[in-house]
Amino acid sequence: MAEREPEIITDKDQMRKWSRSMRAQGKTIGLVPTMGYLHQGHISLIKEAQKHTHLIVVSIYVNPGQFSPSEDLSTYPSDFHGDFEKLKTLSGGVDVVFHPHNLYDYGNSDTISRSSSNDNDREERSEKGAVVSCIEDRKVGHETWVRIERLEKGMCGKSRPVFFRGVATIVTKLFNIVEPDVAVFGKKDYQQWRIIRRMVRDLDFSINVIGSEIVRDADGLAMSSRNVHLSPEEREKALSISRSLLRAKLDAQNGQIYSKEIRNLVIQAIHEAGGRVDYAEIVDQESLEAVEEIESPVVFCVAAWFGKVRLIDNMEINV
Amino acid sequence: MAEREPEIITDKDQMRKWSRSMRAQGKTIGLVPTMGYLHQGHISLIKEAQKHTHLIVVSIYVNPGQFSPSEDLSTYPSDFHGDFEKLKTLSGGVDVVFHPHNLYDYGNSDTISRSSSNDNDREERSEKGAVVSCIEDRKVGHETWVRIERLEKGMCGKSRPVFFRGVATIVTKLFNIVEPDVAVFGKKDYQQWRIIRRMVRDLDFSINVIGSEIVRDADGLAMSSRNVHLSPEEREKALSISRSLLRAKLDAQNGQIYSKEIRNLVIQAIHEAGGRVDYAEIVDQESLEAVEEIESPVVFCVAAWFGKVRLIDNMEINV
Repeated sequence: MAEREPEIITDKDQMRKWSRSMRAQGKTIGLVPTMGYLHQGHISLIKEAQKHTHLIVVSIYVNPGQFSPSEDLSTYPSDFHGDFEKLKTLSGGVDVVFHPHNLYDYGNSDTISRSSSNDNDREERSEKGAVVSCIEDRKVGHETWVRIERLEKGMCGKSRPVFFRGVATIVTKLFNIVEPDVAVFGKKDYQQWRIIRRMVRDLDFSINVIGSEIVRDADGLAMSSRNVHLSPEEREKALSISRSLLRAKLDAQNGQIYSKEIRNLVIQAIHEAGGRVDYAEIVDQESLEAVEEIESPVVFCVAAWFGKVRLIDNMEINV
Repeated sequence: MAEREPEIITDKDQMRKWSRSMRAQGKTIGLVPTMGYLHQGHISLIKEAQKHTHLIVVSIYVNPGQFSPSEDLSTYPSDFHGDFEKLKTLSGGVDVVFHPHNLYDYGNSDTISRSSSNDNDREERSEKGAVVSCIEDRKVGHETWVRIERLEKGMCGKSRPVFFRGVATIVTKLFNIVEPDVAVFGKKDYQQWRIIRRMVRDLDFSINVIGSEIVRDADGLAMSSRNVHLSPEEREKALSISRSLLRAKLDAQNGQIYSKEIRNLVIQAIHEAGGRVDYAEIVDQESLEAVEEIESPVVFCVAAWFGKVRLIDNMEINV
């Protein structure tokens, strides 16, 4: 592929039409789903996708379905112009930037029911313990959700109960709109990557889901669009995550098999740096279930708050 | 299309390969999903599909994911040989009978986690109030479910809590395997039809979902594979459903607007015939929410037991 200006598509029918016409010409399509504010981590996903397919679609869409009303949807960083500039000059090229305005707008047909549009609805659902995202909050009538019932429960699922059903659902929508052959996800979002792989298997999507390694800044911090919200001091403190994870990995490689010992060191290091640990779990790489003794491939996953920013990171430990 | 012997495909990859090769030749594909034991109702779905696409795929698969362990999966009638004979001689023709052995068998990769395969698991889940189908019961590792959160709750969803998530999930799988342009569902399963339409909209499937009218025997009984389990006496009693529904429709057309009055007559008629009413609800045709006064298009949906057989039927009332 030569360098070229990507086509911007905002309409989902036009997106699908493009994919089908390319497929009819024998081309394969790789999809890299993003929420924009692109950094080197995203670029590495695109470069990975370029290895597998003729054509590349990068989607840029901040998905309200994976945010709860109390989360940071309104402050999630975005810069479409800057993103487009980065994609335009990317070696290897990007063919389409799919940038829909609203993937939950279904017009007036078959929309939300009368009684469900009353103001008591959200409250009512919350009382029943049902999860509520910004989509329910907007009362647009969308009510279909893809649930990966076991994998979605732990780690990020505990503190963000609407997150993974929102991710699985928007990815299903993107898969049905773009109809790619390959999709690339970052292993920084390890649980998300495993969830998408499980979903693709269970729902018989004919899509090869590839996990791409974490990209870190020179100081070790895992790249994230949310890093922009860290003050220089917070950023320095946040390095405690990657540093303690690396230490944990070395400890395990040197024979420490007890998860509890290793976890405690990481929790302590983050705490001492001034972070607030959401979770720090050593889990099986496939089932994502906590292990007490490290005797098979595991991944050490961490989420922690520094100031108002929640960061995640992880390290695979292959013993 | 000329009459011809349908090709039997049992492997999902082979099924998808067939569909893609046909699509590459410019052919459109219609899917009629069934659980077999075909009757005139199914035939009418196929005939409807023939109006819309070049090629017809009929799937025959009794889906364990939509039965709870206490339901009638083991006694659900089946007769693949008889079904195939019917399809072979059908005017207009059927191109493929997709008859997979097990759509939840994923081999050894990425399968069920260790702790979840212990015997306490089902009990544990039941205690938490989670729904459990024959799939969880078999511990095959499938854990992704499509939920249509509002429409799945009422009517059949009340007495069969695993039913619609099982239906929505298997239909998603079939859509992803067969990749049809059109899919036809019977309006006898009215709630199911509405749920599939909503799902297709919400998940951006590029599939036209068509509802086909109820087919009745000469005496008025709505056709169902389960009718075979009715004794002659039970069958006679079961006619109370369709007869009272027809009466209800006439009452509404003659100006009776109070749902309660109409419902009571139907409930009473079924009860007097010796049936046990599961539900009898007059609901909005799109939202499926109960209406007290009939002022817009509604559908009167009934489920009732006669002996060990649970029957459903409905009548649209367009005022």
